[in-house]
Formats: sequence, structure tokens, C-alpha cells
Amino acid sequence: MADDLKKGLEGVLVAESDLSSIDGDAGRLIYRGYPIEALAAGASFEEVLYLLWYGHLPDEGELAAFTEAMAAERSVDPAILETVRSLADAGEEPMAALRTATSMLSATEPEGEADAEDLEASLRKGRRITAKIPTVLAAFERYRQGEEPLDPDPALGLAENFLYLFTGEQPDPVAAETFDQALILHADHGLNASTFTSMVIASTMADVYSAITGGIGALSGPLHGGANQDVMEVLIEIDESDLEPRNWVEQATEEGRRIPGFGHRVYNVKDPRAKILRERSAELAEEGDSKWYDITTTLEAYLTDEKGLPEKGIAPNVDFYSGSVYYQLGIPIDMYTPIFAMSRSGGWIAHVLEYQRDNRLIRPRARYTGPEEQAFVPLQER
Amino acid sequence: MADDLKKGLEGVLVAESDLSSIDGDAGRLIYRGYPIEALAAGASFEEVLYLLWYGHLPDEGELAAFTEAMAAERSVDPAILETVRSLADAGEEPMAALRTATSMLSATEPEGEADAEDLEASLRKGRRITAKIPTVLAAFERYRQGEEPLDPDPALGLAENFLYLFTGEQPDPVAAETFDQALILHADHGLNASTFTSMVIASTMADVYSAITGGIGALSGPLHGGANQDVMEVLIEIDESDLEPRNWVEQATEEGRRIPGFGHRVYNVKDPRAKILRERSAELAEEGDSKWYDITTTLEAYLTDEKGLPEKGIAPNVDFYSGSVYYQLGIPIDMYTPIFAMSRSGGWIAHVLEYQRDNRLIRPRARYTGPEEQAFVPLQER
Repeated sequence: MADDLKKGLEGVLVAESDLSSIDGDAGRLIYRGYPIEALAAGASFEEVLYLLWYGHLPDEGELAAFTEAMAAERSVDPAILETVRSLADAGEEPMAALRTATSMLSATEPEGEADAEDLEASLRKGRRITAKIPTVLAAFERYRQGEEPLDPDPALGLAENFLYLFTGEQPDPVAAETFDQALILHADHGLNASTFTSMVIASTMADVYSAITGGIGALSGPLHGGANQDVMEVLIEIDESDLEPRNWVEQATEEGRRIPGFGHRVYNVKDPRAKILRERSAELAEEGDSKWYDITTTLEAYLTDEKGLPEKGIAPNVDFYSGSVYYQLGIPIDMYTPIFAMSRSGGWIAHVLEYQRDNRLIRPRARYTGPEEQAFVPLQER
Repeated sequence: MADDLKKGLEGVLVAESDLSSIDGDAGRLIYRGYPIEALAAGASFEEVLYLLWYGHLPDEGELAAFTEAMAAERSVDPAILETVRSLADAGEEPMAALRTATSMLSATEPEGEADAEDLEASLRKGRRITAKIPTVLAAFERYRQGEEPLDPDPALGLAENFLYLFTGEQPDPVAAETFDQALILHADHGLNASTFTSMVIASTMADVYSAITGGIGALSGPLHGGANQDVMEVLIEIDESDLEPRNWVEQATEEGRRIPGFGHRVYNVKDPRAKILRERSAELAEEGDSKWYDITTTLEAYLTDEKGLPEKGIAPNVDFYSGSVYYQLGIPIDMYTPIFAMSRSGGWIAHVLEYQRDNRLIRPRARYTGPEEQAFVPLQER
């Protein structure tokens, strides 16, 4: 029966999960029952990681121990930094460099950890990966700028430390808080393709390094993680054009051009994460240049209010505002997807831990549509 | 509804495929209509790769051009070999080393290839990966033996060249032919977990490097690729015990011990690949030591004929005979799964190319089972 085929697995339930839930009609996203707005406003990225991995928000003692353990794991082995340097020298794509370096992290597991296969060990491996990804990304950026990487500062939170490693300067508090919020907003989002990739790999009882390396590979795909870069490129194109943003978007839509950052397979209304990032973009605009905020809000107003979009359910998604926020923070455009991975690694790990607790190998089937019977002819007679 | 949940996706059809079909009741495996027995007996691994990737068996001219193009791609960039050396020095697991090195291969794409996104470019990338994996694995093995890697020999076929790079000696023709057959037998097998991993990654339109790196990660899991190593470890245990093989297996089954290499989710009868490898094992036994052949056949006879297995459909699978065959070829036990990857990369690439030809993002759903509404309490008040 043709309708048996579940191409794309749309709507197919492959697991139960306590981690996140999306109400696409209400524009509501929760992590373990907490609305994303409350977490973004009141928690740090570390608290959210703790919530996803341990099942509850930490108290002060739990958070202090967790933060300290993660901060202690930030340094990256010199042999891995050498590989990161050679990737930077070769002009490798940042997502590919992150994929290789994350895979390589397993080579430096502490004594006794490499063979540990229980869930507690997986959690420790996950914590190590999430702690080291910012160091890897900042090192890659500095190498390709011709500079040496800096040493992580264990006194700083994960977001703040990343900005410090990346720029070499102590970030101002608004920048650090904005970046921390962006990490919270991207940490989990149901069984998207990269999260599902991590789960399929983990279902063979492969280790966390394999699962997260696979997730990074999936996120690198243009249909998944790259949209915030596309948005920023369009915003720059508008800025560099001779047209006012309103006229540019009017002309572009008349030409039938698709504006990235609008629409989502799951949301029928505005993505709640986009609302939060729009507010942060407004704050950054007050501090500095308001250009990007003005262009994005003009586009949003034109496309959703004034003109009205042709299809129902096309509203700004998280990528529409994250691009310009990262740009306002001074982050190079090709690092936006790696930063997405830095945050989403938290969700990947949470789903891997949750799935392996009651594991079942994920092995679907294909409907065979090839020939049933071919007579083999030896090479000489073909 | 509870029965909506498709945990493990068992029996769920996620795609149509012309590549391979398994008849689990008849014990029949075909690649594009050709029975595995005919391909193993009459084709080379290169011909099978061509069949999987291009849709038909090559004629002599096509095969010559293909073989030459692949042989020309075998060398691996010195920076990647440096990373392989540091992985060997760190005592990294071979599958993890292969995952990292394969991921790193994308850094040395020829000029203009890195950004090419059409199917032809994906095919060239896949060909490069399949050509370079043997070089990577042999280099890893030689580094950890304290030796320098050898240069690939373009005059040799893929299987023969691998054995040469690995051992430093020209393999004898029986060994080369046996190894070539083993590669043919492992090249594709429906949507197993690693193949499906590659497809999920490719469905984001991520590149072939990401897809194959993910496949390697999935194959590294003990529920997927590691069974032939487990078989060999049991065979060695039997050899080192004081018992005759028949008495050992009698005692082991009485103790309720599970013997690896028997049973398969898909086959209800003997795996056709096991039959072929048993014949090759017999030939290798005639040439040299017959010990391993004797132990495996004694075990098979006892478990399937004499005693009769407790569960229907438990018969030797491909892993039961591949382990001892690789052992007879002098390959270290922890390289068996990487060799599986060397062969299966052909299938992964074929499925990626096939799926991307009519792509749809693979994004299933989870049933949310967490709390719906949690009141956020600030850290200080928890």
C-alpha cells in the first residue's frame, strides 16, 4: 500500500520524551514543563543544561557543583588543538572542523572513562563535550585569524567564557546575557533531524562522541542549521543595496524571492524564540547601531502585517532574529551554525541519555523497488 | 493511542530503494537484483561499488576508468596522517580513529569540489572517501605498531592494496580474493542503523562526509558492528580452554550463555553471507591452520543440528564466520568493525545518493510525556 510509506517520518512517533514540547498553534515551547520565556528570563544556560540532563532545575549547591565541574573540563588537549589548527590552515568549513574536533575529543577521555558504558558515564562524556565545544570553536576562529587560542577562564559562565575566548576581551554584561539567552533558546526542540540522528546512533549503544558528531553533521545541512546565516546574508544585501528596506522587500517579494527566516514545519504562528530574540535585538540596538534591528522589524512588519504572507503559518522563526543578534555581538556569519551546535549539544545529549535508558535499536525498512532477478554476466561478456 | 508509537521503527517503511533486498525466510540477499552468491563468486568489490552507485554492472571500459579513478584517490593528506598518528599514540579505539579521520577528509577536497552540491559531486566525494578509508586504517595500524605507513599501490585492487598497506607484504591470491569477497558481502544490507543514520544526515542536504562520519559512529555501537569481534573472542576462549569445542559449547549453553554470531533481526534461516564465508574459511583452513574452521563448524553443528536452538530462526549470521576468516588473514580483532565500515561505506554512499535524488527532510516526532506546566522558581528560592 502506497500510503504505508512514511517518507520524512512526518508525524511518526518514534519515542516518548520528557524533554521538550512544541505547541505549534499556540506558539509555545517548553523544556520539561517550563515555558521558554521563563527560562530565558530567569535561568542561565548551565541551569537549562542541568534541567535537561538531570530532570529538575538545580538548587544553588547543585548548580555550583555542576558549573565548577563543567568549567574544569573546558581545556582541550594540545594534539586536538593541533588538528584544529591544521583544519583552520586548510580553510575548512567551521561546521566540518567542529565535527572533526568533536569526534577527536574521545581520544583524550580520562583514565577508566573510555570503557565506561553506564548512563552516568555517558552523562560525564556529554558534559565534557559541551564544556569543550566553545574552546574548540574559539580556537578555530583564532587560528584562522592568525592568533593563538586563549586559555578558558573557569571564573566565567559558559556563554561569557566563550565570548572572552572568541574576542579576547571581557564581554559587556548585555552581550553576555544576550548570548546566554540565545544558547537557552536553541538548546532543545523536539526530534529535529540532528537530534534524531544522535538518537539513531545512540540506539546501537555507540558512545556519546559518536552521537554528537553525527548530530553536528546533520545540523550542518542547509535544510537544518544554516538558515540564520542565510538571513544575515540577506540583511547585509539589503543594507548594501540602494533601496530602503521596505522597498527592497516589496521588490523582492514581487520577484517571487523567498526570504529566509520565515516559516517552520512545526509552528503555525510566530516562533516564541523569535519574540524573545527580537527584544534582545532591540536592546542591542539601543546600545549601538540600530540598523539591523530596523531592517528586520521592517521586513517582519511588511511580510506579516502590511502585505500578509501568502501561506498560512508563515511567521518569523528563531533564525530570523538570531542572525542579526549574533552579528550585533560581532560574531562572524559562518560561526552561527557552530554556535547553534554549541547550544543544541545539550539537547542531543539529553535525548541520547533518555533514549538509552530504555533503548531499542532504530532500524526501519525500505520498500525495495529494484529488479527482483538479474542474471549475472561475467565482466568479459558484458 | 499507545500503538501509535513506533519505537525502533521496526517494520516502518521510510523510503523506497533499488539497492538491496533481503528475504529473511528464504535466506536470500540481492543487490539491485543480483544474488549475493553470484556477485561474491564473479565480481570484484569495485564492480559491486559501481553497481551500487551507478545502477548497473560496469563493462570493461567503465570498470577500468572507475578503478583507475578510485586508485588515484587513495593517498591521504599528510596533515590527516598526522592526526591519525596522534590518535594511534593516544591509544584511540580504531572505530573512533576512523570516525575522526573520515570527518577530516573533507578538509582536503580538491579546488572547487568543497562547494559542489550536485549528485555528481556527492558521488565523487563518496568515491574519494571509499578510496581513502583503507589508507587511513592501514596507517593507523602501522602507527600503533610503531611503523610508518606505506604508499598505496595503484596497480592493486582495493582489497589487495589494503592487505598490502596493512601487512607490508603482497598478499597471496587466496587471501586477497577472500578479503575481496568479504567486502562484497558487507557492502549493503537494507536500512540497518548505520545506513539509516547516513540517510537522516543526508536528508538535511549535509554533505557525504557528514553522512559517512555518522554511519561510522552508528556502526561502532555494540548492538550493530561489533559482533564479529565478539565471535572471535569466544573462539579464542574455546581454543585456550581445556575443553574440546563440542564440550565447551555444551557446557556454555547449559550455563545459559549466549553465543555471539547466531540470529539476526531480519533472517529466519541461515544468513546467505555466512554460507559463503564458511566456504572461504574451509579454503583458508586447507592452506594453513584448520583450528578456527574446526571450532566454528563444530559450534554450528552442535547449536543448529544436534542440539537444536531454543528459538526459531536462530542460525549463524555473517559475523559468525567473518571473524575467523579475518583472523585467518592475520587481521587484529579490533580492526574487524573498521573493515566492516570500509565495505559498508559503499552502501552508505549509495543510499545517500539515492535518497538525495528525491529528498525529504527526516524529522519524526516524540510523544511528550513530561509535565505540561511547571512554575519557574528563581535560583535563590529553590
